[in-house]
Amino acid sequence: MTAALEALRATLRTEMPVTQHLGIEAADYRDGVLSLRAPLASNVNHKGTAFGGSLNAIATLAGWGVIWLALRQDGVRGEVVIQDSSVRYLRPVRGDFLARSGPPEPEALHRLLSAVRRRGRGRIGLAAEVEDADGVAVRFTGRYVVHSQGRTGG
Amino acid sequence: MTAALEALRATLRTEMPVTQHLGIEAADYRDGVLSLRAPLASNVNHKGTAFGGSLNAIATLAGWGVIWLALRQDGVRGEVVIQDSSVRYLRPVRGDFLARSGPPEPEALHRLLSAVRRRGRGRIGLAAEVEDADGVAVRFTGRYVVHSQGRTGG
Repeated sequence: MTAALEALRATLRTEMPVTQHLGIEAADYRDGVLSLRAPLASNVNHKGTAFGGSLNAIATLAGWGVIWLALRQDGVRGEVVIQDSSVRYLRPVRGDFLARSGPPEPEALHRLLSAVRRRGRGRIGLAAEVEDADGVAVRFTGRYVVHSQGRTGG
Repeated sequence: MTAALEALRATLRTEMPVTQHLGIEAADYRDGVLSLRAPLASNVNHKGTAFGGSLNAIATLAGWGVIWLALRQDGVRGEVVIQDSSVRYLRPVRGDFLARSGPPEPEALHRLLSAVRRRGRGRIGLAAEVEDADGVAVRFTGRYVVHSQGRTGG
């Protein structure tokens, strides 16, 4: 999955400058699970812990990235957009952190890809978690919409 | 409310560096309503519109700031922390944007301040909206917890 991860990194770097402001990087992608990491230093709040907005941002991006990668893998070109989300901040994050999302449910992913192919538009829900060295600190669920842009390659 | 707004600006500047990464600034505070603004340029995504994570971040901060200001006004020193939130992204944001929150419901604010004074801890829910030149684009609700730090002044 190195090529896919590299492609995602390039997209984040060139097309989502905000990820650089927050120091968010794609760390790993395997078996449909994407991990993004970020340093506390760029995301610190008044208490010396991570800002809730940053934790939500990295979780939103982790879910976004999982779908982006799944579409790419399937040769479907689509724009992925967050529609709504809910997040619970379980405890403060006191160090660098990692967001993990995926794999999508196979049936939900299949439905999404079919809908995008047939109707040019589909929807999928994804969960994500953010953790630091002490374990899970944030639970996130988001609903994403994909709009078709035609197909890549075959 | 100029002194209060200046105090909030100083706090955001010195204690929440992430707000500078995102270009978030306290723009206005009157009648209990706080407005924060941010430029599209620092928060742009792959589509040339505002990144969902940034829209959530500014909404989270607007609610946070309203409570911070209400505590200050009441002479209560407390740490304000986001506990959970939900957000709906109604449409893309194509320009600079503004988040607005407040005023808190008088009864909910009274309950919060009493709880913080009596038990050292209280909770309050707040709504926020994010808008651009075309109107409201994001609806947010968040629940915040306040931990007492003793009292300022009288």
